Amino acid sequence: MQREVERIREDIKELRIQGAKNVAKAAIGAMGLIARKSKAKSRDEFINELLVAADELASARPTEPMLRNALRALFADIKKSTGDVEELRRLVERNEVEYFRKVKENEEKIAEYGGREFSHSSVILTHCHSSSVVAILKRANELSNGISVICTETRPKLQGLITAKQLSSAGLKVTLIVDSAVSYFIRGVDSVVVGADAITGKGDLVNKVGTAGIAVIAHENGVNMYSAAETFKFDPLTLWGGIEEIEERSPEEIINPNKLKGVGIRNPAFDVTPARYLTAYITEMGVIPPQSLLNVVLRGGFESLY
Amino acid sequence: MQREVERIREDIKELRIQGAKNVAKAAIGAMGLIARKSKAKSRDEFINELLVAADELASARPTEPMLRNALRALFADIKKSTGDVEELRRLVERNEVEYFRKVKENEEKIAEYGGREFSHSSVILTHCHSSSVVAILKRANELSNGISVICTETRPKLQGLITAKQLSSAGLKVTLIVDSAVSYFIRGVDSVVVGADAITGKGDLVNKVGTAGIAVIAHENGVNMYSAAETFKFDPLTLWGGIEEIEERSPEEIINPNKLKGVGIRNPAFDVTPARYLTAYITEMGVIPPQSLLNVVLRGGFESLY
Amino acid sequence: MQREVERIREDIKELRIQGAKNVAKAAIGAMGLIARKSKAKSRDEFINELLVAADELASARPTEPMLRNALRALFADIKKSTGDVEELRRLVERNEVEYFRKVKENEEKIAEYGGREFSHSSVILTHCHSSSVVAILKRANELSNGISVICTETRPKLQGLITAKQLSSAGLKVTLIVDSAVSYFIRGVDSVVVGADAITGKGDLVNKVGTAGIAVIAHENGVNMYSAAETFKFDPLTLWGGIEEIEERSPEEIINPNKLKGVGIRNPAFDVTPARYLTAYITEMGVIPPQSLLNVVLRGGFESLY
Amino acid sequence: MQREVERIREDIKELRIQGAKNVAKAAIGAMGLIARKSKAKSRDEFINELLVAADELASARPTEPMLRNALRALFADIKKSTGDVEELRRLVERNEVEYFRKVKENEEKIAEYGGREFSHSSVILTHCHSSSVVAILKRANELSNGISVICTETRPKLQGLITAKQLSSAGLKVTLIVDSAVSYFIRGVDSVVVGADAITGKGDLVNKVGTAGIAVIAHENGVNMYSAAETFKFDPLTLWGGIEEIEERSPEEIINPNKLKGVGIRNPAFDVTPARYLTAYITEMGVIPPQSLLNVVLRGGFESLY
Amino acid sequence: MQREVERIREDIKELRIQGAKNVAKAAIGAMGLIARKSKAKSRDEFINELLVAADELASARPTEPMLRNALRALFADIKKSTGDVEELRRLVERNEVEYFRKVKENEEKIAEYGGREFSHSSVILTHCHSSSVVAILKRANELSNGISVICTETRPKLQGLITAKQLSSAGLKVTLIVDSAVSYFIRGVDSVVVGADAITGKGDLVNKVGTAGIAVIAHENGVNMYSAAETFKFDPLTLWGGIEEIEERSPEEIINPNKLKGVGIRNPAFDVTPARYLTAYITEMGVIPPQSLLNVVLRGGFESLY
Amino acid sequence: MQREVERIREDIKELRIQGAKNVAKAAIGAMGLIARKSKAKSRDEFINELLVAADELASARPTEPMLRNALRALFADIKKSTGDVEELRRLVERNEVEYFRKVKENEEKIAEYGGREFSHSSVILTHCHSSSVVAILKRANELSNGISVICTETRPKLQGLITAKQLSSAGLKVTLIVDSAVSYFIRGVDSVVVGADAITGKGDLVNKVGTAGIAVIAHENGVNMYSAAETFKFDPLTLWGGIEEIEERSPEEIINPNKLKGVGIRNPAFDVTPARYLTAYITEMGVIPPQSLLNVVLRGGFESLY
Repeated sequence: MQREVERIREDIKELRIQGAKNVAKAAIGAMGLIARKSKAKSRDEFINELLVAADELASARPTEPMLRNALRALFADIKKSTGDVEELRRLVERNEVEYFRKVKENEEKIAEYGGREFSHSSVILTHCHSSSVVAILKRANELSNGISVICTETRPKLQGLITAKQLSSAGLKVTLIVDSAVSYFIRGVDSVVVGADAITGKGDLVNKVGTAGIAVIAHENGVNMYSAAETFKFDPLTLWGGIEEIEERSPEEIINPNKLKGVGIRNPAFDVTPARYLTAYITEMGVIPPQSLLNVVLRGGFESLY
Repeated sequence: MQREVERIREDIKELRIQGAKNVAKAAIGAMGLIARKSKAKSRDEFINELLVAADELASARPTEPMLRNALRALFADIKKSTGDVEELRRLVERNEVEYFRKVKENEEKIAEYGGREFSHSSVILTHCHSSSVVAILKRANELSNGISVICTETRPKLQGLITAKQLSSAGLKVTLIVDSAVSYFIRGVDSVVVGADAITGKGDLVNKVGTAGIAVIAHENGVNMYSAAETFKFDPLTLWGGIEEIEERSPEEIINPNKLKGVGIRNPAFDVTPARYLTAYITEMGVIPPQSLLNVVLRGGFESLY
Repeated sequence: MQREVERIREDIKELRIQGAKNVAKAAIGAMGLIARKSKAKSRDEFINELLVAADELASARPTEPMLRNALRALFADIKKSTGDVEELRRLVERNEVEYFRKVKENEEKIAEYGGREFSHSSVILTHCHSSSVVAILKRANELSNGISVICTETRPKLQGLITAKQLSSAGLKVTLIVDSAVSYFIRGVDSVVVGADAITGKGDLVNKVGTAGIAVIAHENGVNMYSAAETFKFDPLTLWGGIEEIEERSPEEIINPNKLKGVGIRNPAFDVTPARYLTAYITEMGVIPPQSLLNVVLRGGFESLY
Repeated sequence: MQREVERIREDIKELRIQGAKNVAKAAIGAMGLIARKSKAKSRDEFINELLVAADELASARPTEPMLRNALRALFADIKKSTGDVEELRRLVERNEVEYFRKVKENEEKIAEYGGREFSHSSVILTHCHSSSVVAILKRANELSNGISVICTETRPKLQGLITAKQLSSAGLKVTLIVDSAVSYFIRGVDSVVVGADAITGKGDLVNKVGTAGIAVIAHENGVNMYSAAETFKFDPLTLWGGIEEIEERSPEEIINPNKLKGVGIRNPAFDVTPARYLTAYITEMGVIPPQSLLNVVLRGGFESLY
Repeated sequence: MQREVERIREDIKELRIQGAKNVAKAAIGAMGLIARKSKAKSRDEFINELLVAADELASARPTEPMLRNALRALFADIKKSTGDVEELRRLVERNEVEYFRKVKENEEKIAEYGGREFSHSSVILTHCHSSSVVAILKRANELSNGISVICTETRPKLQGLITAKQLSSAGLKVTLIVDSAVSYFIRGVDSVVVGADAITGKGDLVNKVGTAGIAVIAHENGVNMYSAAETFKFDPLTLWGGIEEIEERSPEEIINPNKLKGVGIRNPAFDVTPARYLTAYITEMGVIPPQSLLNVVLRGGFESLY
Repeated sequence: MQREVERIREDIKELRIQGAKNVAKAAIGAMGLIARKSKAKSRDEFINELLVAADELASARPTEPMLRNALRALFADIKKSTGDVEELRRLVERNEVEYFRKVKENEEKIAEYGGREFSHSSVILTHCHSSSVVAILKRANELSNGISVICTETRPKLQGLITAKQLSSAGLKVTLIVDSAVSYFIRGVDSVVVGADAITGKGDLVNKVGTAGIAVIAHENGVNMYSAAETFKFDPLTLWGGIEEIEERSPEEIINPNKLKGVGIRNPAFDVTPARYLTAYITEMGVIPPQSLLNVVLRGGFESLY
């Protein structure tokens, strides 16, 4: 069992499992796995096994509030329960099912709301790969008479190629460019939409490195800049001060350092786009101005309007 | 002889000879070669041989005013001369020697003026590879107590690696980043300095794709944005309307298109940075505000100040 | 009865009834009329009659959330009631009385809050005609030592003339200008205040075409830009993606197309001002930052402060 | 003779002769008329007759540097000559011919340079009516595969209708909008191009009221903003301080003031667009950055480049 | 007793008691004093004594919402109580203890949240003197490897010297500059943090004169701009229109007017920084975007996150 | 003689002689003094005496191009002359007379051009003390119906008080404020006008610390920002790279450092305002856009316009 958790942890760390959503789902799945296989005799022992594994998983990548939020919510439920091992086991299993269901439901809502937001657009630019963005663009394409997408390749890991392939397979018109060419094409773009790795209390967006620069270029040209994100990406800890730690990854992802002796190589995975450069977050709770996200998320969405 | 010119043309086209300066020098060298080897019997025949070769060379890359300016100046001199074949041959040979001398002298002046401009800086960011920029940064490093340079890798051809290696070999502290990470590092940067492929009558800068985006990011953060360029890069034709044609290169430079069937790939080599985003051009005539460059270049520099 | 509703519908469509508030009041009045005159035998029949008329009225103008909100709120109440035809009839009548009372009360609050906001101003610019803006400016004029107002004529329907006349009759100093002259006069203006046709979830303002341009000009000159609007103008549907549809009206309003054969004529009635160009909305719930409007409106205002 | 001059003066004042170029041509024509018909006996008498008429014509509209420049240049030539009445008569007649020729030549150059500048555009927005702009857009349309033009109607005198008709007759795709709708359409516009009534020493543009606001809107959306103007529009007097006086015209042009008793009506004919909002002036000397115009105009253009 | 209240009032007015927090504490302390010493016979008499004193204290300085909020909250509690004089006396005393405890607790939270926010910074600029800012910077210095602070002297009362001394005593590296030198040093600054005298419903910051200018300079250079403030500084009355009255103090604080006869002297104590120039408020409820402050304050903070 | 030069040097260094113009005049006066008193036997000895004194004077303050330009021009003339000691003596004396005459003439032209530029203004803000600005404002006041001036006190040396007194004595309406209050008053200001200590090749303005911040505040509010400066302030050396060295003066000017032990004190005398924040330079050659100043100054002004 430990080995399986360890393997999941490694898959997360090495980006074999990738995307905030998949990482969170893997961790919640691992909790379910542990719950099912645990031979714990007491409630305390059982909870301890889960906590040890959760700690390990949470430390695999530092910039993953969705992962931490998912685990935090689970343990809040566990704490509330007074049940024995069997009851807790069922709680963890139900949590797994429910979490997967909720993630899926959110995805559908985001695709629908975002699809409507862009249905009148003709050219959308995106950066890196986000399953929410892909879902939105497919939906927008269904709703309108056909939209065209510009994808950056997204160095160093070239996740933009995944986006390009998925959208092209879905029948959208796709153009691939190098990251540096955003400014060249921006005047013909209606909106930019990217995913999110984390959202801070201030409404700032933590996302794939390059996002902040694209936001500035869009802003200077009057182009809308959206981020599509389930509200699980909101990191409540940032309300208490300090920003999300920015993960810095291996130089090897950029170039073999031996080929460039004496030269330092810096490889930050994310950057931070201030709220004032963003038009809105497209969430399962609606299309929300960045400065209001904390109030929407922490007080709950607006189920029944009027 | 034709084959040699053809080879030079191919080397230019395939970027084996690269950088506006090297391209112009190769073309002027080719003119000398033809002059030396020509068996022309008449003045007209001789000039015609040169013109045919010049046309071929000029068409190798569309965005190269320095190449065109060099050839245009040579033919202006030829037209003024009334000499016979021998005299013209000597004229072309003298032109070659003088052009190489002048280019070298300009380079030294630019290094000196730029070196002084940045001697109080501590962190400079550059994009792509420019021999003028390398010379300036080396000189700045001599004049100050040591400056640190951030180089972008510069997709798709990764010319930033050349910059990084040259500066590191010269003893500067160098950090390599992906193109997308400019925004992440900009707050710690004192100035940006890049080269130039062409400068228009409006003072706009035509340079490696990505430059325009970096300029916007620098502008938004109050960071100075310089271009280092001999005034031979100024394209007088742009005064008469129309911008420099932007060369679009093979998708193969980005990715093998077979790996991305159905996806369009666009690979513009340059972009255009409007004059208002530039602090100054560092030229052999001085450090000049972009909006005044046409007056400085077309009326001559200021040799004896006061 | 049908004819009367049809007439109201036509009056709305042809701008004989005009202004979001008057349109909504007319529709609620029409509901009352139907309720009073209905000969429906069953609860279902009664509701159906109302629904048919509501649909017709709502489709008269596409960009009228206040109209839709008013009808939606009424049907929500109807749905909650289990009463028979008589009881429903009384409900619809009470709703009519209450809606008119609430609209009037809101108007008074907006006049008071806006009046205080501008009591220290000396020159206010407004565009088009808004009864809320007129009420605010009258109140500001009472509170201060006299303010001066600049009105645009507001092509193509020249509603600015109505504003100019009403304010002038009320004793304010008024100057009329063409729409294009806003930039000429802006440096002497303290604040701009306009009405609202609709407000989106992002806090964007949908208002008479020309508003977005005035907002940009005000922003560039450090001039405050307000919109006065009861919160009934907030369109909750925009939270679920997509913007308010922008009504495009007949070219005839601009010019007889026969006089300009071969020329296309476009006549959008509204434009969209992004939240970041707005200082605040002046509503009956207070003077609210645009990015927070959704939270204030959908969670209710702040009745008892401290 | 006096009556004919007086009539020309009235035609200028009442906008029956309109556009800076036509006004200047009319005045130079009037000088020719006087020269031809004069019965002056002495050189002094002859010059005096011209000066009296020139003064009258120059005062017809205060914001017309082209008119003043044309007359000033004529009198400079007269002063240089020492000839008798006959010789001066011939000088004035030659000046008339030459001025008309030069104006025509400039127009052709401006059309050509501007045509090239916009040949890659697809949508151009213009304001008011300028024969230079019309000529440029026709030429651009010939050079490219067809461009589309958006014309504002341009209140109060609706000169935009003239532009729309002329361009439509010439086969361009034209759309007419109200002045307020510029912001609504700006995101789909590639460049704005307008004419010029005067250009100041600082490079600021004096043009039909509304231009300055359009420039701000274009700037905020990254859209290029050009003015097409022969350099005769440059007003050298502004170098010595003070701006061009802005003509304020009759309220009657906007509305019959009796219909709006008690309301002030302001009708400035022009506004001033600061140099920093302009991309370039398209002149017969080339496409020039605004801040450099004084150096280009006052030192002469660049006839032989390289 | 009256004399003691009068003395406190004078100390507040003459800035012997200074800082919004100290002023509020002094007023609440005065209420306690009155309660303890009152010889009132009836409930009404007792409340009246308190009200008279509260009115006097509140009028000592017009721009002090924290003072008004504290008194308003106290009287709300009094009104809810039906107790007799003794009970009310105990209520006022408990309120005093509780208020001091709450202020202290808020201060500690603000220091902690702000300390974390700046723990990665190296240079912070501050203006005037704020005990919250001092506490934050001390905490940030503990958390990081040492930060450096730039203090403006803050004319006319030179409160910046107090900040400089307190931070220097606490072991931070401190540099003092004149107010005008902010722009000179801004490029080397990571963040600006100031206190707050009042916060309006729109999220605007009322603070020591000079703050608004620093905010603009920071904005233009991409530098974050924070205000540290307990939410007691939020002025709910501003929601109902009108801004905080800006206190204008004696010219004597600037210069003896006799030395400058004939010259007017203006001495506003505060200015207003619009919400869009602020990164966030650091409050005891978290680090909050300015546009959302009203919703956070008026609906209560987020005690238990997830 | 040496002692007299030494005294002048000290007066310059200690700001007893102050203002770029007065410093340059003192140095040229000192050259005259030396020429008159010199007992040099040979041409070389004479020139050497001048050079030694010039070196000493030039080093008294590092940021004084006007001083250096004046001396440089003198020595250029000396070099051109082949005369003996007597002839050189006369040359130096004539230079002194001519320099004083030219400075006076420039002052009058600047006053006139600037006066016209501001004759339509009603409120002008200025910083520090500049005799050119005082002359301009007096002239503007004569030309218009009366203008009002806001003066900053200008810490640390309070030169703003001199400006306030001089303008008030001349009958202008003057208001004194602390430096920090610029932002508070800016919305009511028509234009800002300051002097200049030096102007760089890029058109940047080196002036009293605080100027750059005021320029940013003016820019953000659409307020014009002028600098009044004879072209002698242009520093041609900056064309060859590097900015003017910014003099940092004694901390004692701000506060007795003993009162603030452990706190660093920084006292830069000037800051640098980038050309893009300036509307124009008001010079004796006209009102010139900053980016064109180098071409106007180094190629000579425009004596005879048309």
